Amino acid sequence: MRLLFYTAGSNAESWLEALRRVLPEAHIDGWPSALAGEADYALVWKPPVELLRALGQVKAIFNLGAGVDSVPDVFALPPDVRLVRLEDAGMAEQMAEYVSHAVLRRYREFDAYAEQQRLSEWRQRPRRPKSEFIVGILGLGVLGTAVATALAPFGFPLRAWSRTHKLLSGVATSTGMSELDGFLAGVRLLVCLLPLTSQTQGLLDRARLSRLPQGAYVVNVSRGGLLIDDDLLVLLDNDRLAGATLDVFRDEPLPPEHRFWHHPRVTLTPHVSAVTLVEESVAQIAAKIRCLEAGRPITGVVGREYGY
Amino acid sequence: MRLLFYTAGSNAESWLEALRRVLPEAHIDGWPSALAGEADYALVWKPPVELLRALGQVKAIFNLGAGVDSVPDVFALPPDVRLVRLEDAGMAEQMAEYVSHAVLRRYREFDAYAEQQRLSEWRQRPRRPKSEFIVGILGLGVLGTAVATALAPFGFPLRAWSRTHKLLSGVATSTGMSELDGFLAGVRLLVCLLPLTSQTQGLLDRARLSRLPQGAYVVNVSRGGLLIDDDLLVLLDNDRLAGATLDVFRDEPLPPEHRFWHHPRVTLTPHVSAVTLVEESVAQIAAKIRCLEAGRPITGVVGREYGY
Repeated sequence: MRLLFYTAGSNAESWLEALRRVLPEAHIDGWPSALAGEADYALVWKPPVELLRALGQVKAIFNLGAGVDSVPDVFALPPDVRLVRLEDAGMAEQMAEYVSHAVLRRYREFDAYAEQQRLSEWRQRPRRPKSEFIVGILGLGVLGTAVATALAPFGFPLRAWSRTHKLLSGVATSTGMSELDGFLAGVRLLVCLLPLTSQTQGLLDRARLSRLPQGAYVVNVSRGGLLIDDDLLVLLDNDRLAGATLDVFRDEPLPPEHRFWHHPRVTLTPHVSAVTLVEESVAQIAAKIRCLEAGRPITGVVGREYGY
Repeated sequence: MRLLFYTAGSNAESWLEALRRVLPEAHIDGWPSALAGEADYALVWKPPVELLRALGQVKAIFNLGAGVDSVPDVFALPPDVRLVRLEDAGMAEQMAEYVSHAVLRRYREFDAYAEQQRLSEWRQRPRRPKSEFIVGILGLGVLGTAVATALAPFGFPLRAWSRTHKLLSGVATSTGMSELDGFLAGVRLLVCLLPLTSQTQGLLDRARLSRLPQGAYVVNVSRGGLLIDDDLLVLLDNDRLAGATLDVFRDEPLPPEHRFWHHPRVTLTPHVSAVTLVEESVAQIAAKIRCLEAGRPITGVVGREYGY
């Protein structure tokens, strides 16, 4: 079996070391490679278009991340080639940690208490009724479900919205563009976990964000392209929204001159909410390769019509 | 039935309104009262000693909080008078929120990321192995158990230490003073949820805190008297401990000149981790009064020999 491996990241050696250990029977080529056309499988992160064009009758392309927006020109790939994204692979737990922290921080007003500490001010703030602190999750895939499951024991009222109809115990779900505005109305803290596709690009614009109630919070942990930065900034500046916790951005690294860096209502992190874990990811990909070799179906195959 | 009510807090009217609604059959006297000696039950928060001395054949004294260190001279009360503390009454969920936030914040280094944001520094920090981030809980009563239960789904390795032997699924428990040092060794984040008694006063001194590994964190959410402030400060100053999250203090409000206010490694809040909720507490006390009137046993009766 022949694998073609490429990552735009800096940790290629970790991947290769793990792949050799878990799939000792495979020949692994790097890119560029004259043998790309003979690869049975490609494992890629942010591959150049030339790599994809050089592939021959590959059985599957594994994306080394959950979001396949990193694969250029998905629609140009031959339709019978499986494009496979990572599912969970240790990311769900990390995402549950990150979002739970953000929700608890906003609900319990720890930022306000940090400011009081700076001012040596001893003052107990009135507690907001939890029943009114509705957390709304955009996207109810593996990560959205993990976040909802993590928040449920804390007693937050939970809503989720997804493209296709989904059910999750203890979560009020809604579906499709016609129900999006109704979903947003009343959500005190919005968590964005949607994939970036042609349909979700720029979804969180001024009109949609304005459906949130006065003083709501926005947490974006999926892709920066879902959010119109300037629209969010206007709503933060004019007091319509109380704050944003942002881990992902249109341009990464976030340019030094971007207003997000020093906006008093923005908490940002450098795309660390859920990082790809090499060991877990390689184990998952190897298991899927063995399934395919045995002629069995696998999960995580990207639906080309929706782009995720 | 005659109740004597006293609180040192500012919300007496909320308590009285709820008591009249839930126990309409009761006569409620305030303090001072010439009828204190005829009270069947006393409901008190930080009562003066004179109030306790004025009580006659009271059937129970209900403390309007979880910690009965607020009742002066517990040992001087007639031994046959039940002293009853609040159990949970909405505090467990709040405590789970507060401690989960503190643990996630330290584990995921959100303070370091806040500093990076201040410096416009885009840098992903290496993730610490969760298997090494052992959370140790001192005290495994209602609140300690709630905290352990909240942290378990996040996958933190959990330990707990308590005076009496206790078992909790997924938590490595240890018991008694002889096992305390062994418990502390290896704990990356220590959560103190012990009651303040003559045995726990000053428990967290320099020797005990020095058993924690280099770079550990301390979270105190029970009572300030458990901790020797200057010992903690020495260990923070000399880099033995990485940080402390403190909600409770020897003197409250924390005096303006105290070093905790502006220490770069101290995050503090003004005793808000778990506040007494009037509705829930009155419902619990009323239910216990009805039990006692019917001759049935109740939980939450303070063991005088241990003081909690």
